[in-house]
Amino acid sequence: MKPNTKNWFRPAVLKMKGYTPGEQPTDLRTVKLNTNENPYGPSRVVQKAVAKLGDFRLRLYPEPTAHTLRKALSKHYGWPIEGILVGNGSDEILSMLFRASVGPGDLVQYPDLTYSLYPVLAEMSEARVKEVALDENLELPFEKFSLQARLTLWGHPNPPIGNCFDPKKMAAFCAKTKGLVLIDEAYVDFAKSHCLSLARKCPNMLVLRTMSKSFSLAGARLGYVFGHPEVISQLMKVKDSYNVNRITQGLALEALSPQGIREQKTKIKIIQSERERLTKALRELGFVVPNSQANFLLARWPLANSAESLYKNLKRKFILVRYFSHPRLKQALRVTVGTPEQNNRLLRELKGLLKRR
Amino acid sequence: MKPNTKNWFRPAVLKMKGYTPGEQPTDLRTVKLNTNENPYGPSRVVQKAVAKLGDFRLRLYPEPTAHTLRKALSKHYGWPIEGILVGNGSDEILSMLFRASVGPGDLVQYPDLTYSLYPVLAEMSEARVKEVALDENLELPFEKFSLQARLTLWGHPNPPIGNCFDPKKMAAFCAKTKGLVLIDEAYVDFAKSHCLSLARKCPNMLVLRTMSKSFSLAGARLGYVFGHPEVISQLMKVKDSYNVNRITQGLALEALSPQGIREQKTKIKIIQSERERLTKALRELGFVVPNSQANFLLARWPLANSAESLYKNLKRKFILVRYFSHPRLKQALRVTVGTPEQNNRLLRELKGLLKRR
Repeated sequence: MKPNTKNWFRPAVLKMKGYTPGEQPTDLRTVKLNTNENPYGPSRVVQKAVAKLGDFRLRLYPEPTAHTLRKALSKHYGWPIEGILVGNGSDEILSMLFRASVGPGDLVQYPDLTYSLYPVLAEMSEARVKEVALDENLELPFEKFSLQARLTLWGHPNPPIGNCFDPKKMAAFCAKTKGLVLIDEAYVDFAKSHCLSLARKCPNMLVLRTMSKSFSLAGARLGYVFGHPEVISQLMKVKDSYNVNRITQGLALEALSPQGIREQKTKIKIIQSERERLTKALRELGFVVPNSQANFLLARWPLANSAESLYKNLKRKFILVRYFSHPRLKQALRVTVGTPEQNNRLLRELKGLLKRR
Repeated sequence: MKPNTKNWFRPAVLKMKGYTPGEQPTDLRTVKLNTNENPYGPSRVVQKAVAKLGDFRLRLYPEPTAHTLRKALSKHYGWPIEGILVGNGSDEILSMLFRASVGPGDLVQYPDLTYSLYPVLAEMSEARVKEVALDENLELPFEKFSLQARLTLWGHPNPPIGNCFDPKKMAAFCAKTKGLVLIDEAYVDFAKSHCLSLARKCPNMLVLRTMSKSFSLAGARLGYVFGHPEVISQLMKVKDSYNVNRITQGLALEALSPQGIREQKTKIKIIQSERERLTKALRELGFVVPNSQANFLLARWPLANSAESLYKNLKRKFILVRYFSHPRLKQALRVTVGTPEQNNRLLRELKGLLKRR
């Protein structure tokens, strides 16, 4: 019997394509520089905590509001616990935000180059969308954003370039707009500035974080968002009861311990210094590489119409980087900063590939 | 500055209260019989697997579609992998189903007594709702369900009673309705029948499972749903990319190993036999207890207008059971079947409390 799918699903869903996550290679030889994970493992306290978790408690539901973990986040970041929500990755928090805030026809806006999940969530919500093009210098033309939008989303740093927009201009926009502003700070621990202190003055600003990047816990799924307690309480309503599992709550708590934070900071420094070295080296090879404040670089290869063949040739050498089909990104590869060894191998293979042209 | 919440959130969300999960006691003395968890831990293979997971892989994103785990589910249940979706608990799958299928004004229907999350999800979707009252015998009056509903939800067994509706009548309804039918089989491993073979013949039927109950993995969060591949592919579109974390995928895989399944079955048998013993003993105390095919019992105390004081008095003795304020459930307590020792303690305390009246 042929399923009558069009009777069963919302038109917006039937029409949409869904988000495409980066490739997950199965070949263990692969140098994986395509999804901005941390090349180093989580701190040793976190690794030890995993080993201790193999007990009866897995049979019990996790804390529904992750109170213990939120208390630790509150202490670490100096933010009231009622203004913190945790999610199954920051993706889940974005999904909750759209569900709670954006209905059919509501206006949602974001830069044309940013996290490619926003358009998918907007489509699912049947939102009206305004994509504002970054200017030639990859800066944000604030004056082009509508003050009437229900929701505005900016990355800080903003993928896939890794640059940061001017926090003062963001604050000025927040003071004027009628809607909510989400600052996606997934990569902020690698950057020079953050927006938490701005958010204290802007009740319509939400600051989104994750443990997937600087804390090396992409596999555990933990996102958290800071906002005004009244805003957070609305988001809480659309949350699944037990959205963050027991193990992840325990590991995240360890990641925030003094030892966990010390190890996080050490690794951030290595990655920042490798980022600067890799930027220089790629520029020397002829790539155009904007300064990045994240753990990835956008490397544009101006001598070809498309960087797709570079991407494919690297893949053949077991190096995975991210290639986007977006019209403005056809000449570019997004490269996660790896360990010094991984970065050297990338540079060596690129040199070889470019020589052969 | 006072946040202007009503400008930022959907009216349906501002109005709603959200789902209230069962209490999570912090006092370790508590005998926890309120949220239908398994009183026994997960299988030893699962516990061993946790200890092995403390390595670098946590830094990497999990498999987006959980292919390896879905392959194991496919083999274990004899269902095509394209017809299986896994979620962060079965709650997330329910939430995905509503998001993908139910828009404002669409008709959703379920029994008046069932999983109390359905009304919350329906409210969030701005659905029209039809609640069909179970009859005097707690049976489902199939003829009262609309054939035009977008989505029909039934538990099998159906909480909070634990009875199973007639599978033949469910199949007949599925053949006639225009909409989707979700059979929530969270507790089915404790029951005599399941609906997987029915679903093979009904492309509009979805069968939902979880590892929270018979697999003792409530803390790890894993739900899965079986359906027609074309139905599953629509649900996949609204899924967060990395919705099931790496550890849970690994543990669930172990839970499905031959050793894991052997241990699961042993514990199911103990719980079933304790369920029968507890049913008899509660009836002897004067409770009205419908036969249950789940790992919980609904015990009605006909001599008082409300069982709330019983609930409170048990809580004072560090025994937690579930009390609902629903008009049809005021005289009842829902009790999770515990270990023999826990059940004996519950019976002892109840005896003492009832004597004092």
